[in-house]
Amino acid sequence: MTALQQQGQAAKAASYTLSTAGTAAKNAALEAIASSLDQRQGEWLTANAEDVEAAKAAGMRSAMLDRLTLTPERIAGIVDSVRQVKALPDPIGKIDKMETRPNGLIIGRRRVPLGVIAIIFEARPNVTVDAAALCLKSGNVCILRGGKEAIRSNRAAAAIMQDALEASGLPAGCISLVQDTSRDTANELMHLDGYVDVLIPRGGASLIRTVAKEASVPVIRTGEGVCHVYVDEEADLDMAAEILFNAKCSRPSVCNAAECVLIHERVAEAFLKKAVPLLDRHQVELRCDASSLAILGGRAVPASESDWDAEYDDYILAVRLVKDAKEAISFINTHGTGHSESIVTKNYFTAMNFLSAVDAAAVYVNASTRFTDGGEFGLGAEIGISTQKMHARGPMGLEELTSCKYVIYGEGQVR
Amino acid sequence: MTALQQQGQAAKAASYTLSTAGTAAKNAALEAIASSLDQRQGEWLTANAEDVEAAKAAGMRSAMLDRLTLTPERIAGIVDSVRQVKALPDPIGKIDKMETRPNGLIIGRRRVPLGVIAIIFEARPNVTVDAAALCLKSGNVCILRGGKEAIRSNRAAAAIMQDALEASGLPAGCISLVQDTSRDTANELMHLDGYVDVLIPRGGASLIRTVAKEASVPVIRTGEGVCHVYVDEEADLDMAAEILFNAKCSRPSVCNAAECVLIHERVAEAFLKKAVPLLDRHQVELRCDASSLAILGGRAVPASESDWDAEYDDYILAVRLVKDAKEAISFINTHGTGHSESIVTKNYFTAMNFLSAVDAAAVYVNASTRFTDGGEFGLGAEIGISTQKMHARGPMGLEELTSCKYVIYGEGQVR
Repeated sequence: MTALQQQGQAAKAASYTLSTAGTAAKNAALEAIASSLDQRQGEWLTANAEDVEAAKAAGMRSAMLDRLTLTPERIAGIVDSVRQVKALPDPIGKIDKMETRPNGLIIGRRRVPLGVIAIIFEARPNVTVDAAALCLKSGNVCILRGGKEAIRSNRAAAAIMQDALEASGLPAGCISLVQDTSRDTANELMHLDGYVDVLIPRGGASLIRTVAKEASVPVIRTGEGVCHVYVDEEADLDMAAEILFNAKCSRPSVCNAAECVLIHERVAEAFLKKAVPLLDRHQVELRCDASSLAILGGRAVPASESDWDAEYDDYILAVRLVKDAKEAISFINTHGTGHSESIVTKNYFTAMNFLSAVDAAAVYVNASTRFTDGGEFGLGAEIGISTQKMHARGPMGLEELTSCKYVIYGEGQVR
Repeated sequence: MTALQQQGQAAKAASYTLSTAGTAAKNAALEAIASSLDQRQGEWLTANAEDVEAAKAAGMRSAMLDRLTLTPERIAGIVDSVRQVKALPDPIGKIDKMETRPNGLIIGRRRVPLGVIAIIFEARPNVTVDAAALCLKSGNVCILRGGKEAIRSNRAAAAIMQDALEASGLPAGCISLVQDTSRDTANELMHLDGYVDVLIPRGGASLIRTVAKEASVPVIRTGEGVCHVYVDEEADLDMAAEILFNAKCSRPSVCNAAECVLIHERVAEAFLKKAVPLLDRHQVELRCDASSLAILGGRAVPASESDWDAEYDDYILAVRLVKDAKEAISFINTHGTGHSESIVTKNYFTAMNFLSAVDAAAVYVNASTRFTDGGEFGLGAEIGISTQKMHARGPMGLEELTSCKYVIYGEGQVR
């Protein structure tokens, strides 16, 4: 048995204890984690400083370095988010439906934890704690496999959290960190059948695609976002310009940012006149099809075929004219990633048809795609945004980290 | 593009039409399918007779031959089941939850079809129609890949159903049959990413395991059933004997049949005295651990290690003594397949703990495992019994063939 298989086996064993732990026990552990992370933040900051130093020496670029770096303020935010998760309602044990069958069997469907959730993520030490807190609250053991750049920070956080678990009477193994951050362990984790109930990759598109392709354990794909804004012939063009500006520029690095605008050809010129000055504020690069290029001239560059499927995560926008809403819908269903899609229109029927026909986790009328988020949707917190249709779709809160179990109360019934 | 990729692309295109079809249109198509299968049963029976003849010539064993064979009575049953599916409530379009957020966005979660469901199954021609009807009612396009032994029957059924779809105004491509039944197409179907939203293997354990291991498209594992009955120290032993007899012998070939009995050591002798005469009616072979063998003597044979994980689907039963309920639970969680598990006990706390601690799709107190079934659970019909925790667990009815989509109504909101 390899080290990771042993870790998987221990996680599975811990999951049987955690799955039957009550809300009070889980909340006590979350409180212990929050206060320990606060009190022992010195250890965590020291470890993080070593990670940051090593990353600088290795030439990490500054945006990544910023994500890696912890500060007392950031730790306070992380601690606060653990307490927010503690305050959320416990989804476990809820009975979705229950009925007495004609033969007298009482059959109920009860929410239960998924079991063991493995998470592969990159160099963001806050994910370690966020993911652990959400898994714990929903009764799931987590196996965390972060990037090598954050390993010292992650070891410190995991050790603090494990101590807190033990002090509050739950097995330390409810939170499990993969110590070896080589490619091999990521690969092994994808094939830890029997121990890992669900694997959630959090990171760039290439990580997610590799995991979805390679894994033999069940996977939830999250956060691939090629999102569109479609400006209809009957759009309020000022509203459309504001929505596009927000969807593209308010935070271009996130998955719910827009990457492509589709514009009804009859309003293209008028719309672009309003939108471009807003996009100019961030010098957004416009990559255009032939017909929009003809309007924008020197302000834009021609798009290549790959631009229609690109997730830029940057101040770049693909621009394309369409002849009607139907063409826009078809283009979105072909080139979107099923994340978030928006139409701007005043026409009721065009809006309703867009909502029905677009195949995505979140479909908007007259609003920015940037709202696709667990907090904004009222879920309280999220572990990611699912772009697949199985199990969960859209922002995944605590409920999405559960499964169900039929419990049947009999009096000797046979069939 | 291969033939199967083209078929996948066509299925995806048809799914955009079917996903927005209303209940009336889907019901009309189901009625057309039911009456066409009835009226054109001659074609179907002729094709099936050729399959049966070829299978006989190839030396197929009689139980399999029986499953392959269609008769007018069986067709009447299949037609009737299509009409039953038609009569079920349509799960699509239901809004699970809807709320107005503080910023005025109205956010609803709407039930939508999964999209394209591929089903790999063996030589049972009824599955072709059952699966097609459930997929159609739930707005999903199906790609059916049956076994080569039933290909003539399946071609006839698919042609009749496709004609009925067209006559009722839905695309014929809503039901799609893989014509080539070689191993290659099964393998290609497992990797039809982008076209297949979910793949459901229906058949033996080796098919299911292969698909789960190999597929890159999302899979739902169904029907692996190593089910246990645990006879507690405080069981009503007569009830326990009846339950075990039913769970093992009422239909040993199905996945909810029991394969192993765990008996509290203090009641083992008394229980076996009651149970063995019942099991004798079907000459059930008993494969025992050392301590139960000591009780049963010449009536039993020693179990080997592999017996504790065996799905016999036959009149064979593994027998093992345990020292308490805790050991039974731990054994079940190690050796079960997460399908159906039952405890027989009069003790309230032992019962409640078993319900909580056993990790399976259906957990019973004082009832036979044989009840795990869509019809028995009140779902109306089922496409299989999921033994995984993601997406669906237990009998999968129409609701389990859906996904969701967030629809958001805005008035220009930006973030």
